[in-house]
Amino acid sequence: MSRHFEQAEGLCEEKDPATNGFVFNQTMLRIADPVRSLDFYTRVMGMTLLRKLDFPEMKFSLYFLTHGEDFSEISDDNARRTAQTFGRPAVLELTHNWGDSAETVQYHNGNSEPRGFGHIGFHVPDLEGACQRFENLGVAFQKRLEDGSMNYIAFIKDPDGYWIEIFDANRVNGDS
Amino acid sequence: MSRHFEQAEGLCEEKDPATNGFVFNQTMLRIADPVRSLDFYTRVMGMTLLRKLDFPEMKFSLYFLTHGEDFSEISDDNARRTAQTFGRPAVLELTHNWGDSAETVQYHNGNSEPRGFGHIGFHVPDLEGACQRFENLGVAFQKRLEDGSMNYIAFIKDPDGYWIEIFDANRVNGDS
Repeated sequence: MSRHFEQAEGLCEEKDPATNGFVFNQTMLRIADPVRSLDFYTRVMGMTLLRKLDFPEMKFSLYFLTHGEDFSEISDDNARRTAQTFGRPAVLELTHNWGDSAETVQYHNGNSEPRGFGHIGFHVPDLEGACQRFENLGVAFQKRLEDGSMNYIAFIKDPDGYWIEIFDANRVNGDS
Repeated sequence: MSRHFEQAEGLCEEKDPATNGFVFNQTMLRIADPVRSLDFYTRVMGMTLLRKLDFPEMKFSLYFLTHGEDFSEISDDNARRTAQTFGRPAVLELTHNWGDSAETVQYHNGNSEPRGFGHIGFHVPDLEGACQRFENLGVAFQKRLEDGSMNYIAFIKDPDGYWIEIFDANRVNGDS
């Protein structure tokens, strides 16, 4: 069986065994205000704060968030939980440089020049329900479901303005 | 039991049931050259291309990559595989705008002004072995293990210059 599910130039067909066990663990975004962002990612997006690391000498703190309904395997021991946090997939890492606030810094979301990073994206089981709830909660939209041609995706904005794509995986129209 | 494992201002302690089933699925980065990036993420990082979506009217293609040693559950049916791709955690989405090439575009990695996105990060089971292999393969480093004070992490650069943090989850020093 092929290592890949699509044909494309550049693909390495034989996985190097040296990469066994690699885990795409984290995506790091800088934030201006941790109170504002923790509220958003836990209350609005339903994430759980797994670990917080403070680096007083370098004057920054890191917040590691993830999804899940069952965290019974997560340890209360800090060292063990650090390992669990860095070893699992799909962790959002928020970096707060001490002294930054919403009044003093506006981070760049990558979707105007100079472009690069585009967005993070979440599957939701009930797309219309989720978007209506975001509206009710006063979340900013970059693109509502009814805007434009791709009516099976929406984009909301987190408190720093980073784009978050919202979709139901079962309704993504990937005909191509 | 608390919803969170750390104390921090802003945390929502009661998870809204409306967020049950949300999955942090994807992180999207724009790339200049899909051949170059697919080679890097499959050969060097050991990822698998799950899905490729082309949007001829809007002149872009999307490449969805993930990790794993067992893809026996992944469907060969395109529609089903689209749903599997968008419903699972830890997918890297690479966006190629047709016409872009390494000669015509240099995307912004977010770590010089204007800053925002910082990096993606991978757990590797053998940190020194992985870094030596990256050296042998000619991968560019932003920070080698021996550079600076955090000698349990390295940063390599992908072909567009995006930073990739490399660490062994069991050796991250998170005392704080």
